[in-house]
Amino acid sequence: MRYRIAIIGLGLMGASLASALRGFRDAEIVGADLDADVCRKAQQSGAVSAAYTDPCEAINGADLAIFCVYAHNIPVLIEKHRGAFKPGAVLSDICGVKSSLYARLAAILPVDADYVGIHPMAGKERDGFDNADPAIFNDTGFIICPLPQTTRDSVELMRSIAEYIGATKVSVTPFAEHDAIIAYTSDLMHIASAGLCMTYHPDMTSAFTAGAYRDCTRVADINAEAWTELVLDNRTHTGACLDAYIADLQTIRQALAQNDADALRMLLQQAGDNKREMLKR
Amino acid sequence: MRYRIAIIGLGLMGASLASALRGFRDAEIVGADLDADVCRKAQQSGAVSAAYTDPCEAINGADLAIFCVYAHNIPVLIEKHRGAFKPGAVLSDICGVKSSLYARLAAILPVDADYVGIHPMAGKERDGFDNADPAIFNDTGFIICPLPQTTRDSVELMRSIAEYIGATKVSVTPFAEHDAIIAYTSDLMHIASAGLCMTYHPDMTSAFTAGAYRDCTRVADINAEAWTELVLDNRTHTGACLDAYIADLQTIRQALAQNDADALRMLLQQAGDNKREMLKR
Repeated sequence: MRYRIAIIGLGLMGASLASALRGFRDAEIVGADLDADVCRKAQQSGAVSAAYTDPCEAINGADLAIFCVYAHNIPVLIEKHRGAFKPGAVLSDICGVKSSLYARLAAILPVDADYVGIHPMAGKERDGFDNADPAIFNDTGFIICPLPQTTRDSVELMRSIAEYIGATKVSVTPFAEHDAIIAYTSDLMHIASAGLCMTYHPDMTSAFTAGAYRDCTRVADINAEAWTELVLDNRTHTGACLDAYIADLQTIRQALAQNDADALRMLLQQAGDNKREMLKR
Repeated sequence: MRYRIAIIGLGLMGASLASALRGFRDAEIVGADLDADVCRKAQQSGAVSAAYTDPCEAINGADLAIFCVYAHNIPVLIEKHRGAFKPGAVLSDICGVKSSLYARLAAILPVDADYVGIHPMAGKERDGFDNADPAIFNDTGFIICPLPQTTRDSVELMRSIAEYIGATKVSVTPFAEHDAIIAYTSDLMHIASAGLCMTYHPDMTSAFTAGAYRDCTRVADINAEAWTELVLDNRTHTGACLDAYIADLQTIRQALAQNDADALRMLLQQAGDNKREMLKR
């Protein structure tokens, strides 16, 4: 029988993933979305061969089901459709925070399902099906977060998917460590960027902006709903990162207050050294 | 007689500007740099028709002299070579902070010189002649900062130069206002980016990074020497911007501590609205 993949949620990430997976193991790729209009467009565009407003119809017979919806909806959907999963099916999600989700999954996973979450390090400022693009995964990071009981086969399946969709930096990382690192590389960056746009000079115009402004504030044009959930789900780690960031900024502030060129130069030099060190990783 | 432009300092900005000006009013473009090797390369590459280690030789007979060196060197150079400037010459600089420089210029400008500073909103993380590129000015901002006594002709000369080198967003702005706005659009962005690289998760690798990390930390690979001078020269304005930024981050931190989704969503929404508002300016 033909391999069947179900993508639950056809927003930016789900639809991009569905398109990028086209041809993978010659699978039939089906989708589900609450929005009938999105289902219609997804099917017409060829992102999926069929799309349903009832997730049950997509899940039915799927060898692999990937949940591309808000984290809080995943346990609800899995519990509701628990009986619909094919025995031995691989279940996955693409959420940016794993610990709280995994804790909720423990009690409700179908007994014979194999769960392995993934986190494709891709996205866009703009969400939704209309912005989907399979190229967003090209040359990106991709983190595989197994549970203790996840089979090696399912981890390898995800590694194949990562390579197939174009991700080049793949890491298999326990979910707790994933969340701690992501708090720095993703949550903190989005908070820092949003913070830069909370207060701004009233007379600024584009004549006064260059690459630094453009890049530092790019992700401030954020999906507030999605990032509120992500940040609060990971608030222990993210809070610690933010505390460290504020403390570092206060150290810089002190060098300014004291007009201390040596101290400021050393801080900027250290930041630059760290940045160059990180680029090698 | 042929129009003569002297570019004093052939680092990234000076050499890029010299190359971008090629052909402007059919001018002879000469340069000066303390580094004889840079002078040789600048002349060989055709960035300038002649380059001298003694600024006096470049200034001699120049109708326009643009200082592309560290701000603290400009009054020193102008005072030292005060007698060498052509009567009626236009003097300029490309420094990122104007108030402290302009205050020092008042007493030492040649009586018949016309001064008008500029701030091309262009650059690169990497400095030096070898990274020079006339294309860095394409589609950028360009601020013209006259003194109260600057002639309209010199302001218009700078506007012509801005257009010639490819800058598309030109603003004529009093220097005090320039410094206040730049503290937000440039100084704060560089400090925020550097701060993000002062403390980082020890286990992070490129697999965990995506566009947000890349963009927010890009300018942290900074010229610590140059930015220490820029930031401290503008420390009153920059300090105020940094205080506001830290306060805004603390507001976000509080929403995290209280697990307050409504508050966080509202803050992120406001940041996104502000960012979109700024894009229209």
